[in-house]
Amino acid sequence: MTKLNLNYHKLSGRPLFPEIEKRVEAMKQKQPHAVFLNLGVENGTQPLFPNVTAALTAASSEMGNKETFRGYGPCEGYQFLRKAIVAHDHKDFSPDEIFISDGSHADLADLQEIFSLENRVAVIDPAYPIYVETNVMAGRSRPLLKTGRYGGIVYLSCTEENGFQPELPNVHVDLLYLSSPNNPTGVALSRETLTRFVQFAKKNNAIIIHDAAYESFITSDAPRSIYEIENARDVAIEVRSFSKSAGFAGLRCSYTIVPHHLKVYDAGALHSVHALWKRRVETKTCGVSYPIQKAASALYTREGQQAIRDAMKIYAERAKTLLYGLKSIGYTVYGGIDAPYIWCKTPPKVGSWEFFDFVLENIHVITMPGVGFGQGGEGYIRFSAFAEPHEIQETLERFKRLA
Amino acid sequence: MTKLNLNYHKLSGRPLFPEIEKRVEAMKQKQPHAVFLNLGVENGTQPLFPNVTAALTAASSEMGNKETFRGYGPCEGYQFLRKAIVAHDHKDFSPDEIFISDGSHADLADLQEIFSLENRVAVIDPAYPIYVETNVMAGRSRPLLKTGRYGGIVYLSCTEENGFQPELPNVHVDLLYLSSPNNPTGVALSRETLTRFVQFAKKNNAIIIHDAAYESFITSDAPRSIYEIENARDVAIEVRSFSKSAGFAGLRCSYTIVPHHLKVYDAGALHSVHALWKRRVETKTCGVSYPIQKAASALYTREGQQAIRDAMKIYAERAKTLLYGLKSIGYTVYGGIDAPYIWCKTPPKVGSWEFFDFVLENIHVITMPGVGFGQGGEGYIRFSAFAEPHEIQETLERFKRLA
Repeated sequence: MTKLNLNYHKLSGRPLFPEIEKRVEAMKQKQPHAVFLNLGVENGTQPLFPNVTAALTAASSEMGNKETFRGYGPCEGYQFLRKAIVAHDHKDFSPDEIFISDGSHADLADLQEIFSLENRVAVIDPAYPIYVETNVMAGRSRPLLKTGRYGGIVYLSCTEENGFQPELPNVHVDLLYLSSPNNPTGVALSRETLTRFVQFAKKNNAIIIHDAAYESFITSDAPRSIYEIENARDVAIEVRSFSKSAGFAGLRCSYTIVPHHLKVYDAGALHSVHALWKRRVETKTCGVSYPIQKAASALYTREGQQAIRDAMKIYAERAKTLLYGLKSIGYTVYGGIDAPYIWCKTPPKVGSWEFFDFVLENIHVITMPGVGFGQGGEGYIRFSAFAEPHEIQETLERFKRLA
Repeated sequence: MTKLNLNYHKLSGRPLFPEIEKRVEAMKQKQPHAVFLNLGVENGTQPLFPNVTAALTAASSEMGNKETFRGYGPCEGYQFLRKAIVAHDHKDFSPDEIFISDGSHADLADLQEIFSLENRVAVIDPAYPIYVETNVMAGRSRPLLKTGRYGGIVYLSCTEENGFQPELPNVHVDLLYLSSPNNPTGVALSRETLTRFVQFAKKNNAIIIHDAAYESFITSDAPRSIYEIENARDVAIEVRSFSKSAGFAGLRCSYTIVPHHLKVYDAGALHSVHALWKRRVETKTCGVSYPIQKAASALYTREGQQAIRDAMKIYAERAKTLLYGLKSIGYTVYGGIDAPYIWCKTPPKVGSWEFFDFVLENIHVITMPGVGFGQGGEGYIRFSAFAEPHEIQETLERFKRLA
């Protein structure tokens, strides 16, 4: 008799994004004439850059030509892309340490697999739900507690009080999920915070999985990569993305850095984490679509780099408008400087979902309920700057009416 | 201290394909003037069909245009593709039961995850290595035995004696991996065989994961889908692919059918396997690249369907030439009628790897060692018909010299 992975049943409710979709759909049914503004999205509004589109269509044509057609590519990604990434952004690494994947989301979900189920997991809180959920699904947690948190998982709170810079765990942990800039708070981890965590990991032989999907949005002097911190390559894996910097969310391409330096002592011997991840990638995946990798490699040209900078400027401007606009109405807001997200406190005694629903129903603005990103997000909603200027202006107008 | 998933260390040697690559590279170094013929590949030689390339480039252009740009798509795939698949090939299912993924390989690797680690796994042998390897990595096996098989896994032998039609397990099993047409034997499972397995699964509340990646190559009256068998939707998941039928290996797109009918009784309640897989897909993936899904949907047109039939004819012709050619030289060969693979017995007392190396060194033909697909493949090598006619002719000439 087939038995199920009952760890899945520990998961609370449905995943966040489908739940949002459901509520928005219901409200649209209820108020068919309302004009909804979507300030909840994680998709850029800018299309692919012209030279990226050109590379994508050219590679697509190659696939239709007998002489230039390509079948299976290397599981870890084409050398042309891995080399370009190293040459532009990671000169201290070898192309061999770069793994191309079809999205940082998938890598963030799958990296836990190469580690034992016995490891104790710590996560930044609030955070992108996938860190916790995939560890729950694998069986590294106890059931959901009444607090809304999972037993056995260590939560590293990012609060107003600590400036959204998490404290070190005060219990033993083995695997830490950090994210800078953090989604949803929109705040980057400072050099001091990252240094403390790297030192902690080094001292405790722990490993950090660092989600840097939003690094290109940083405008402050916060580190853009955990590898700017001394010794980080001994303890950290970093996941990067083209989804936000270059509008690749619908194309699917990203990369993960697994340093050769990263070693684990287990079962009486020293092991390479790189070798383990390579084995997983070689066994379970067949590489990323060739035209998509060609599109990504077009980002590593003068034109591509300039286009990224231009796009970042556009979003930074919008985030600033939203941040200062909400502030001037009287909201307590954070983030927006190093990320396209604004983290906004709900009115006193109003919960995240309650405020989300209220805003949706009354002024038809779609946001994200902070608690969807963990209990640490309760009492907040998240705004996204991935919206057109007129939508942002209109959002601010509507919130003014609400105040 | 981080602990590793030591199940990975149970895996024998390196994955098959990188091992082949390594040996071929070494031989090319050793014999730099030799002309190598690759009869080992799993890649089609035909480029993308013209209407597929057109759809791919058109959708690529859409991504570069602000009005038609798309970000994240639905995790389970776009409705336009799911609907087309159902309308053309699976009229008894709803689009909701079709999950688009970035390759059958990934789904075949990941499906095990929704089932308990306690399940006993049975696999067709020889078979595509991923069925066994991903279950070993997850922890559903004991260590590798001296026989070259993993303890705790039940192997369903496909032999010359049983016409490559596996017998039912004679012990208790929960999860069965079948594949028809089977890679590497090149033989499709008969209606009788599949019926026996469906009945077995139904009686024992077991689940079948059926790999039908090569169904479009079937020319005999063998079933093209396990769902041709009565009650199969109560017990089976089927994984399909565009990689072989339409040259999508380098594009990455496939689909998996998880019927709503498929229910599991566990922990005192009846559960939907569809709900569990949907949860995994929604949590861990972000859907397949939009231009790639548009390319796939172009297969479901009159032109696309005709192109598949034409491609299948080309490969069937080549497989036949290879099959009868090798036979006429004196080799004992199977397969080739329902699949692009020829399963060829090695000379008496010569092992798979030994014959692979011998052929590589002496006549510079790259094949696949049967034992790479499991102990059931020992004593065979596999030829692929994914080669040009002149390469197939030249291969036969060289084997004649060897005889």
